[in-house]
Amino acid sequence: MGTSTILPDLGTQIVIPLCAAIGIIFSLIQWFLVSKIKLAHEKPSPKNGFNESLIEEEEGLNDHAVVRKCAEIQNAISQGATSFLYTEYQYVGVFMVAFAVLIFVFLGSVEGFSTSSQQCTYDSSKLCKPALATAIFSTISFLLGAITSVISGFLGMKIATYANVRTTLEARKGVGKAFIVAFRSGAVMGFLLAANGLLVLYIAVNLFKIYYGDDWEGLFEAITGYGLGGSSMALFGRVGGGIYTKAADVGADLVGKVERNIPEDDPRNPAVIADNVGDNVGDIAGMGSDLFGSYAESSCAALVVASISSFGNNHDFTSMMYPLLVSSVGILVCLLTTLFATDFFEVKTVKEIEPALKNQLIISTVLMTIGIALISWIALPPVFTIFNFGIQKEVKNWQLFLCVGVGLWAGLIIGFVTEYYTSNAYRPVQDVADSCRTGAATNVIFGLALGYKSCIIPIFAIAISIFVSFSFAAMYGIAVAALGMLSTIATGLAIDAYGPISDNAGGIAEMAGMSHRIRDRTDALDAAGNTTAAIGKGFAIGSAALVSLALFGAFVSRAEITTVDVLTPKVFIGLIVGAMLPYWFSAMTMKSVGSAALKMVEEVRRQFNTIPGLMEGTAKPDYATCVKISTDASIKEMIPPGALVMLTPLIVGIFFGVETLAGVLAGALVSGVQIAISASNTGGAWDNAKKYIEAGGSEHARTLGPKGSDAHKAAVIGDTVGDPLKDTSGPSLNILIKLMAVESLVFAPFFATHGGLLFKIF
Amino acid sequence: MGTSTILPDLGTQIVIPLCAAIGIIFSLIQWFLVSKIKLAHEKPSPKNGFNESLIEEEEGLNDHAVVRKCAEIQNAISQGATSFLYTEYQYVGVFMVAFAVLIFVFLGSVEGFSTSSQQCTYDSSKLCKPALATAIFSTISFLLGAITSVISGFLGMKIATYANVRTTLEARKGVGKAFIVAFRSGAVMGFLLAANGLLVLYIAVNLFKIYYGDDWEGLFEAITGYGLGGSSMALFGRVGGGIYTKAADVGADLVGKVERNIPEDDPRNPAVIADNVGDNVGDIAGMGSDLFGSYAESSCAALVVASISSFGNNHDFTSMMYPLLVSSVGILVCLLTTLFATDFFEVKTVKEIEPALKNQLIISTVLMTIGIALISWIALPPVFTIFNFGIQKEVKNWQLFLCVGVGLWAGLIIGFVTEYYTSNAYRPVQDVADSCRTGAATNVIFGLALGYKSCIIPIFAIAISIFVSFSFAAMYGIAVAALGMLSTIATGLAIDAYGPISDNAGGIAEMAGMSHRIRDRTDALDAAGNTTAAIGKGFAIGSAALVSLALFGAFVSRAEITTVDVLTPKVFIGLIVGAMLPYWFSAMTMKSVGSAALKMVEEVRRQFNTIPGLMEGTAKPDYATCVKISTDASIKEMIPPGALVMLTPLIVGIFFGVETLAGVLAGALVSGVQIAISASNTGGAWDNAKKYIEAGGSEHARTLGPKGSDAHKAAVIGDTVGDPLKDTSGPSLNILIKLMAVESLVFAPFFATHGGLLFKIF
Repeated sequence: MGTSTILPDLGTQIVIPLCAAIGIIFSLIQWFLVSKIKLAHEKPSPKNGFNESLIEEEEGLNDHAVVRKCAEIQNAISQGATSFLYTEYQYVGVFMVAFAVLIFVFLGSVEGFSTSSQQCTYDSSKLCKPALATAIFSTISFLLGAITSVISGFLGMKIATYANVRTTLEARKGVGKAFIVAFRSGAVMGFLLAANGLLVLYIAVNLFKIYYGDDWEGLFEAITGYGLGGSSMALFGRVGGGIYTKAADVGADLVGKVERNIPEDDPRNPAVIADNVGDNVGDIAGMGSDLFGSYAESSCAALVVASISSFGNNHDFTSMMYPLLVSSVGILVCLLTTLFATDFFEVKTVKEIEPALKNQLIISTVLMTIGIALISWIALPPVFTIFNFGIQKEVKNWQLFLCVGVGLWAGLIIGFVTEYYTSNAYRPVQDVADSCRTGAATNVIFGLALGYKSCIIPIFAIAISIFVSFSFAAMYGIAVAALGMLSTIATGLAIDAYGPISDNAGGIAEMAGMSHRIRDRTDALDAAGNTTAAIGKGFAIGSAALVSLALFGAFVSRAEITTVDVLTPKVFIGLIVGAMLPYWFSAMTMKSVGSAALKMVEEVRRQFNTIPGLMEGTAKPDYATCVKISTDASIKEMIPPGALVMLTPLIVGIFFGVETLAGVLAGALVSGVQIAISASNTGGAWDNAKKYIEAGGSEHARTLGPKGSDAHKAAVIGDTVGDPLKDTSGPSLNILIKLMAVESLVFAPFFATHGGLLFKIF
Repeated sequence: MGTSTILPDLGTQIVIPLCAAIGIIFSLIQWFLVSKIKLAHEKPSPKNGFNESLIEEEEGLNDHAVVRKCAEIQNAISQGATSFLYTEYQYVGVFMVAFAVLIFVFLGSVEGFSTSSQQCTYDSSKLCKPALATAIFSTISFLLGAITSVISGFLGMKIATYANVRTTLEARKGVGKAFIVAFRSGAVMGFLLAANGLLVLYIAVNLFKIYYGDDWEGLFEAITGYGLGGSSMALFGRVGGGIYTKAADVGADLVGKVERNIPEDDPRNPAVIADNVGDNVGDIAGMGSDLFGSYAESSCAALVVASISSFGNNHDFTSMMYPLLVSSVGILVCLLTTLFATDFFEVKTVKEIEPALKNQLIISTVLMTIGIALISWIALPPVFTIFNFGIQKEVKNWQLFLCVGVGLWAGLIIGFVTEYYTSNAYRPVQDVADSCRTGAATNVIFGLALGYKSCIIPIFAIAISIFVSFSFAAMYGIAVAALGMLSTIATGLAIDAYGPISDNAGGIAEMAGMSHRIRDRTDALDAAGNTTAAIGKGFAIGSAALVSLALFGAFVSRAEITTVDVLTPKVFIGLIVGAMLPYWFSAMTMKSVGSAALKMVEEVRRQFNTIPGLMEGTAKPDYATCVKISTDASIKEMIPPGALVMLTPLIVGIFFGVETLAGVLAGALVSGVQIAISASNTGGAWDNAKKYIEAGGSEHARTLGPKGSDAHKAAVIGDTVGDPLKDTSGPSLNILIKLMAVESLVFAPFFATHGGLLFKIF
């Protein structure tokens, strides 16, 4: 056992927790480095007198009033974010308990809560643990996944709200210093999440193994609950956070910019704190939980498929743990990559910011390719067999290397295409900006067309990854391709979280009334962040597509159907209705943003009308009420789209059975991925087209501007339309396609036994 | 033979051409009735002195200058439309010849141009006609379909441009008179198209039978070329016409309404004639060729599937002709239905217009249900077998009745849902109008959400039709369900063509400077037309979905693949890339409209700047140049999206083979139908939200208005965004999904023999 691989089982048992520990320690070091920037109300320690003297040379450093004001604002944002997350967690808690009970009851009922062992699904000559055990352990792993996701999201939000003000303060010293703070803080989030996810999964597998022993099939089936837990928290994070952030943003803009004609992030606007809170709960906590969900799901999908391969049959622990080993190597690679941005090179000018972030992607991908090759060589037997819908398929280790590699590189391609379509350094966004000449209507038309067009190459990249990995190693190949795309998750999250932190930093600078020069620096950081945010979304969507397909394959295996034939009515109606679900879901989330934003508009108007001296800046607005409105509205508005996602697999599975459900999953996947890509790129392009006109960095841009020109007004309309598309409905679709797939997988045994009621009756 | 049905073969041979003849005669009578309205420059005949005295009582009837002006305008529109169509037909001619050669070469090469008979595909014990014969006859039927489509579109355009001015003139006598003219003219188009399509198909089958004799399999395979011909002309009509109409419309509005602040349809606007021409070539000729394509394809799909059923084996001519008999009955039913609008009841007030049109749908559906029941009883044997991917399936005649019926009623449901989401009598459009309060951005967000939401019920209706018809009679059931939806095509086209005729009538009234009262009457006709246009699009999309599925099934049968398993890499990559194609295609068509509109904007600006006295109304603009710009731009811009549709099946079939092609077709179908529905409903809703504010018909509407208010300006932006969505990219998707399917079917023998090069090499 385990002798067919170069890396012994003991080595595996050391490498995985070690890498996870390194990741956690590294993120703590980054946090420590960020925390060395002191806010004014903290007593300066006599020891860092050297630093104090150095920064004396820079601008406005000793204006303690400004620093105090920054600290106050940061405090308000942090409190708002914490209060939203606590409120959300109350609902999450209720949901988690209810869903845990549901999982236990549904899965337990498969064999009528019998405690005796049963025939194994794939090898009827052996005895496996009872369905009741699967029910109990699935429930436990569901809770583990959910809690890990919640903790990762919470910590990410904490560091982000801790870092934003520090980025603002460092911006006084120069753009390079500010960049490093924002980037380090992003790295804290990235490494904590990647390492925690890996560690908890690793510990769960080892603990479950004590009970399951040699029944790996049952063990890894129960482990899939971990993915479901992670993903269902992502539903709250992405959808709830997405509604929150855009309700506040759109609401603040509609009254502030349009009606009162005050600039963005003006402290007189009562919704401005809520807007900044939104960046943290939506883009940081939401994005984190989304990618954590993808990571957990792809690992689980790979494990559950591997458990019925030759790894599982031979009880080859090292090979079985290959997905976790890939992630372990990923942490080391990302650590090295991070040093390129923070230590090996230094960002000195504005122009160097975007290349520095882009290089992160390239460096991590190149290094990771070497890492994967290494781990595929030492952790896999030269030849092994995997299970392909009833047929055994032989796979060579270099083939599996190619599967992981194709996913990894497809991620890079998607990232670059996204950059091309959303950065204002290239033609597409410039064309959209140019169309503002003839008004908002042409801007919207060109923007929508850009989003549609931006699907083409990413879809081909995904299709090629699927074809290569599917051909080499069937569903196992798809699952590891998804893992490959996510193997550099720590770096991906770091550059992604960098965006909202910079955005917040700019907001704080504006609110604290800091100088124009500082504001320009934070704006430059933010503009780069817009593009990286779009790249992050591209990754999230691409990996969601691969993950869903892997889960879909695992579901089909587990539901004991061997073909999903489009030419049967049961499957086809599933396919067409599934393809409709992303539209239904998008309609719900867009309307939710609209309704929540309108509530915000009313409150902001009310404050402007009833608080004397607010417009003059002599009275303070009531930020807390706006935060509360966003919190309550987003949680309330989240319920219908959430219910659609959670209930569809249950209803379809119970009433129409596994074939129709397979159709629904395939339809939702192939349709949802297009809307998700086009929505997030359209929104990103509109945002940057507006920024292009505002910045006036070229001859062409200056003919469209300045701020306040007709073309600029048209661009602002596009930007506002894009807000819910790029930050709410688009990214939420990832959750739709992933969560439905993993839920189907977890409940597959139940559906296979008791499902399809409607067809049984008629 | 044929004895198992109540209706003898001879009866069938009489009924079909008779019904077609009745349809043609009825349309000629309608034309004659419309032609009795004389334009002023024609000498009044002394005989109708009675009429002359009657109309004396009405408004402005003897203002001969106005009538002369109307005639002039009509003449310009008619010339513009004719010149566009002639230009288009030059390209169409080249395309037709080239594609005919391609069909001949590809299909002829299947057996190496051998002239000896070959084994039949489905029954290898028999001898069938050589592949070369299929090549020749497919080419002939392709040309027949193409020519029939061209003639139908051309005649429809002729009557529409003939009727628009007569509607304007009749509007002087009252809204009821004008309604009847517009409706009768629509009926001319509807009946001519339905009857011609049926007659040509019937004649082709009988002529081909002389050569094919008992080889019905070969005969009906060759007949599928008819569908391809009809559908490829629809590509030109829908895409080219769609680009034309919206380039002119958007271009005219951007300069006229936005820059020069002159009203819509103002004769000073140089693009105003091109805009009116566009309504005729896009909405009349384009819509006609689209529905004719659907009709031809669903008939061909039903025939080709039936040819390998027990009908074909027993050479049971009447049962074989069941699809054509359903269409024959449809003509009679629609004839009766038309009389309800023109003779049995009379529209007297504005309020009665919409119900009159809606009743047309209800009456035709109810009557047709009886008609289908009757024809299923007399033209089908009580029990027969059809071929279901290798398995024989037994079908009862009442089951086939249900298949046709479910399609028919699904069409009605889609029509009503479309009305609900696009008419300003209901909440959804009123909510969109209300969102204009907070500006154009919220209007766009709410409009997009409305479109997404409007997919839900139509998709369920389509899914249920598919499930029922598929379960009862496999792909034959789907094909006849599509036919059921299209069986009332004459009425559908009549109410659909009514819209652009009324729109044109209003334009002519405005340009001729007719009184406000007359303009109000034509506006009321036009508002009802907006909703019926959306309903027509709903029908077109619903039927396109069913037709494509039927063609897809026929293709799969013909390509000799028995399952299309989503869980194979070849199929899945096809599915996901196929789902991307509608986005690619939409991006192209939307950009095409944008580019063509910008060219128009430049020309209109040039004329305003260089022609002295144009704004003052003392000089005439150069309408012809604008017409030429629209014509040239639309034909040039049509090539890339057209090439995407035509080349995709060829490239995929040749290089990736039939499995991947099957995936592409399924993916494009399930994804495209959603975008098509949401795009056309979003556009319709924006248009009517604007009209709702303009009309100010309720307390709520008046708080948003009047014309020129901020809310109204926001509504105009939404309307402009919606133009290309509802009239170009949305409806063109029908062609995408249908044409790819029928092309795949025609080339299936070639792909099955020589396709999949890439996989053969590697």
